[in-house]
Amino acid sequence: MKVTIWNENRHEQRNENVRKIYPEGLHGTIQYFLQRDGFTVNTATLDEEEHGLSEAVLNETDVLIWWGHLAHDEVRDEVVQRVYERVLEGMGLIVLHSGHFSKIFKKLMGTSCDLKWREANEKERLWVVDPAHPITKGLGSYITLEQEEMYGEHFDIPAPDELIFVSWFEGGEVFRSGCTYKRGKGKIFYFRPGHETYPTYHHPDIQRTISNSVKWAAGLGSAMPTYGHAEPLEPIGAKTNSKGDNKR
Amino acid sequence: MKVTIWNENRHEQRNENVRKIYPEGLHGTIQYFLQRDGFTVNTATLDEEEHGLSEAVLNETDVLIWWGHLAHDEVRDEVVQRVYERVLEGMGLIVLHSGHFSKIFKKLMGTSCDLKWREANEKERLWVVDPAHPITKGLGSYITLEQEEMYGEHFDIPAPDELIFVSWFEGGEVFRSGCTYKRGKGKIFYFRPGHETYPTYHHPDIQRTISNSVKWAAGLGSAMPTYGHAEPLEPIGAKTNSKGDNKR
Amino acid sequence: MKVTIWNENRHEQRNENVRKIYPEGLHGTIQYFLQRDGFTVNTATLDEEEHGLSEAVLNETDVLIWWGHLAHDEVRDEVVQRVYERVLEGMGLIVLHSGHFSKIFKKLMGTSCDLKWREANEKERLWVVDPAHPITKGLGSYITLEQEEMYGEHFDIPAPDELIFVSWFEGGEVFRSGCTYKRGKGKIFYFRPGHETYPTYHHPDIQRTISNSVKWAAGLGSAMPTYGHAEPLEPIGAKTNSKGDNKR
Amino acid sequence: MKVTIWNENRHEQRNENVRKIYPEGLHGTIQYFLQRDGFTVNTATLDEEEHGLSEAVLNETDVLIWWGHLAHDEVRDEVVQRVYERVLEGMGLIVLHSGHFSKIFKKLMGTSCDLKWREANEKERLWVVDPAHPITKGLGSYITLEQEEMYGEHFDIPAPDELIFVSWFEGGEVFRSGCTYKRGKGKIFYFRPGHETYPTYHHPDIQRTISNSVKWAAGLGSAMPTYGHAEPLEPIGAKTNSKGDNKR
Repeated sequence: MKVTIWNENRHEQRNENVRKIYPEGLHGTIQYFLQRDGFTVNTATLDEEEHGLSEAVLNETDVLIWWGHLAHDEVRDEVVQRVYERVLEGMGLIVLHSGHFSKIFKKLMGTSCDLKWREANEKERLWVVDPAHPITKGLGSYITLEQEEMYGEHFDIPAPDELIFVSWFEGGEVFRSGCTYKRGKGKIFYFRPGHETYPTYHHPDIQRTISNSVKWAAGLGSAMPTYGHAEPLEPIGAKTNSKGDNKR
Repeated sequence: MKVTIWNENRHEQRNENVRKIYPEGLHGTIQYFLQRDGFTVNTATLDEEEHGLSEAVLNETDVLIWWGHLAHDEVRDEVVQRVYERVLEGMGLIVLHSGHFSKIFKKLMGTSCDLKWREANEKERLWVVDPAHPITKGLGSYITLEQEEMYGEHFDIPAPDELIFVSWFEGGEVFRSGCTYKRGKGKIFYFRPGHETYPTYHHPDIQRTISNSVKWAAGLGSAMPTYGHAEPLEPIGAKTNSKGDNKR
Repeated sequence: MKVTIWNENRHEQRNENVRKIYPEGLHGTIQYFLQRDGFTVNTATLDEEEHGLSEAVLNETDVLIWWGHLAHDEVRDEVVQRVYERVLEGMGLIVLHSGHFSKIFKKLMGTSCDLKWREANEKERLWVVDPAHPITKGLGSYITLEQEEMYGEHFDIPAPDELIFVSWFEGGEVFRSGCTYKRGKGKIFYFRPGHETYPTYHHPDIQRTISNSVKWAAGLGSAMPTYGHAEPLEPIGAKTNSKGDNKR
Repeated sequence: MKVTIWNENRHEQRNENVRKIYPEGLHGTIQYFLQRDGFTVNTATLDEEEHGLSEAVLNETDVLIWWGHLAHDEVRDEVVQRVYERVLEGMGLIVLHSGHFSKIFKKLMGTSCDLKWREANEKERLWVVDPAHPITKGLGSYITLEQEEMYGEHFDIPAPDELIFVSWFEGGEVFRSGCTYKRGKGKIFYFRPGHETYPTYHHPDIQRTISNSVKWAAGLGSAMPTYGHAEPLEPIGAKTNSKGDNKR
C-alpha cells in the first residue's frame, strides 16, 4: 500500500522549536512510523513543483495524508481539484489537525469547517466512542496528550458518517476529534491532534491511530461506477395499469 | 399535545434531600414547566396500577417522558411491551438520565446501554454539536450544570441518528449526552442530565431542551405502514430478458 | 414563513410542451400550491438581475427552492457563494430534480452528484422508507408517477443524514430520491421528481411532500455559533497529574 | 478467521425441491464457498443440542451467519441471549433473508423488523449504493437474481449505519437489502436474498458479497471497554468560577 504524506512544511523553516521536535519535518516523523508499520511512504511539500502532487504521484497513491496550516491559500486550485477527483475515484484521505481549514477538506465537506481554538499548553484527552471501529484497534479507552492546542465545538462539519473520538480539553471544551466520511469511492478520516509545537506525532497511540486509519482508508481497487445515459434493463410501456394497495 | 411523565418516584420517598429539591417529585417539576410551555401533561408512577401506563393512558399520549433508576427491574414486562409497541406506532419517547438502564430503552436500542459513572458533585458542561436541530432552539453554545453525576464514555448505544449534545465533565470524561433515534414511526430522545440530588430540572436551559424535545418527538398522527403479504403492483413474468450494461 | 422559488426558466421559453404543462412556469405552479398551503412565496429566475437572488432577497428567505437544468454554468459564482453562506446561516434549501447538478448542490455535497438517467416516459414509484419523518406526513406507502425521467444509482452523493424515499423505475433501476442533509445551521432536502415535460408538480402527493419539506427545512431563527479564538472556561495548568484507569 | 453458519435446517427436511437445490443444506452450500475463500467454517443447526451454539462454539467464532425461517420461536431464549452477548463483545453477525424475523435480529435492532413479502418467482436486481464499502468489492453496478421472493418497504428497521444495496423487484417494490449496523463491539450485516426454493447462494456475486461481509464483520480482537464506577482523572472542586463566552 502506497502512502503519500503532504506537509506544508513552513513552520519547520521558521520556528526552531518545531525543528527541535520534528527535525525531519512533521512529514518525516509520520513517514518514519508508517514505514516502520510496513507501508511504502513518500512525502510531498508545498514548495515542490505542483506541490509534489503531480498526476503521476497521485495515481500511485492509495492514501494521502494532509497537514497544512499557514498557507492553505497558496495551494493551487488545480492541484486541489486533482486531489478531489482522486478521492472520488477511491484514494483514501487522512486530514490532520489544522488541515480542517485546507481547501481540499472544505471542498469535500461542503461546510466552513470553522471551530473554536486556543493555544494554552493544555491537556487533551481523546475518548474512544466507537470501539468496534478498526481505526481504534489496539487503543485503550482514551489517549492523553499532556499539551495540545484546543479545538472546540461547534465544529462546522457535516454530521460524520462515523464518530470515532471525542476530545476533552482542560479549559472546558469538547471536540469531535475523529470523524470518518465517504465521498464517491473515497474514504476520509479527519483526526484532530497534531499542533506543530507539541510532540504529538511521537505518541505511540497517535501513531497507531494514524497507521490504523491508513489501512482503513485504502481503496478497494475496483472500477468506478458508470454514470450518464443508461439503456433500460427491463421493457417499458408493456405494463398493465398498476394494482395493489397503497394504504398506510 | 398530550404528554405523560413517568417517574419511578422512589428516591423522593426515601431521601429528604431529593424531596427538598423536588417537593412534588421529579415528575412534578417537569410537569410544571411543560404545562407552563403549553402542553397538556399527566404523570404516572411505578407504584400505581399498571405503573400508571394502562392502554388507555398510552393511547392518549403523544409523548412519554421516562425517569427511572432504583427499580428498573420492577417495571413489568407487559407494560414495557405496551410502551414499546406504542413507540413503534408513533408515540414520542424522552428518556432522561438513569433511564439509560430502563428496560424500555435497552429494548429499543438493542445494546447494553452501559457507561462509566461517578457521583462527585462535579461540573458538567453540555456542548451543542448540532445547532441546526430544533431541540437546541434558543440555547447558547452550551449549558453549564455546576454539580451533576458524571456519565462517561464508552456509552454502549447504537450510533445515534443525530448527536445533539456532548458533555464535558470536570473529572476528565466526555459523554454523548443528547442523542436522537427513530424506531418504527416513533422518535426517541435520550437526554443525560438529571441526577435526583441536584436541581437540574430547575435549570431554564434544561427545561427549554426538554420542552423542545417534546415538540420534536410528537408523532405525525398518520396511519401505520402496512406489512405482510402484498399483491404485485406490476405484471410479473411478461418481461423479455434483461439487457443493458453492468460494467463499473 | 417566506419561501423563494428559484427557477432557471429556460425550458419554458423554448418548449411549447413545457409551457402547456406549466403555463406560469415550473416556479408558477410551485408558487401556487405553496401559497395555497399558507406560505408567503416569491419567485426568482436566472435571467433576472443577480438571478433574482440579491442579498436583500436571500436575507428575507426562510426556505429556498431550486430548479435548474440547462444552464447550471450560467449561475454566477458570487450568487452561489451567497446562497451557500445563507444555507450555513440557517436558510432551508429544497433542491429539485435536475438541480442535483447545480453549482450550489455540488458545493454543499462535496461530491460529483452524478447519476444514471434516461428519458423514456417510464413509470416511477417513490416508496416511503422513513414513515416517522415529517416530510412524509399524510402520504401513503408510495407515490406513483405514470411518466417520469429515470434517475438511477449509483447516485454520487454523501450518505444522506436521512433517507426518506427510494424510487422504483419501470426500466429496472432504483434511486435514493428523497435525502436530507444538514450543513451548518441549514437543512437541505433533495427531492428527485420533476422533469419539465411531465405534470409531476401537479400531483397532489408531490405537492404535499414539497410543502412538508418547506416546513421541515425552515430555520430556527436562533443566533449563529461563535467561532475563532476562545478564552478558557476552566483554569489550565493547576491540575495534578492524571490518575485513573485506561484499561479496556 | 473462524466462521460458524447457523441454519434452521427445516425446509431441507421437508421439501424435496429445497434438497435438490441445496443437497447439503443451505448451510452446506455457504460452508463450501466460504471454505473455498479461505475461511475456517463450521455449521450449527436448530436441532442440535443448544442449537449447536454452546458457549464453547461461540467463544471460538469470529463471525456467525444466521439463516432461519419456520421456527424462529423454537430458538431458546438463553441461546439468543448468549449470541447477543457475543455480538456486543465483538463477534460479527451476518443475518440472511428470513432471518430478519429471528429473535436475535429483532433483539439487536429494537424494532419489529416487519416488511412486505410475496412469493411469485419474480426478478430481483440488487443495486450497489455504496461502492466505497468493502462489502461491495469486486461487484459490478448490480446483481441480478432471475427468481426470488419479494421483500418490500416499509422495512421496519432502524436507519442503517450504512446502506449498501437497494433491491428493485419486478412486481414494483424496492427494499433496503444490504444494511450494516454496529452494536457494542460487534458488526452486523443484514443481507436480503436467499429464499430456500431458489439457487441464490450458488450465484457467484452473492457468494462474493457474503464472503466480503465476513471479512468486514470480523472483530478486532481488542479488549472490551470498561464500564461502571470510575475514579476521576482530574481533580474536582479546585476550579475557580467559569468564565468565558456563551453567546451564539
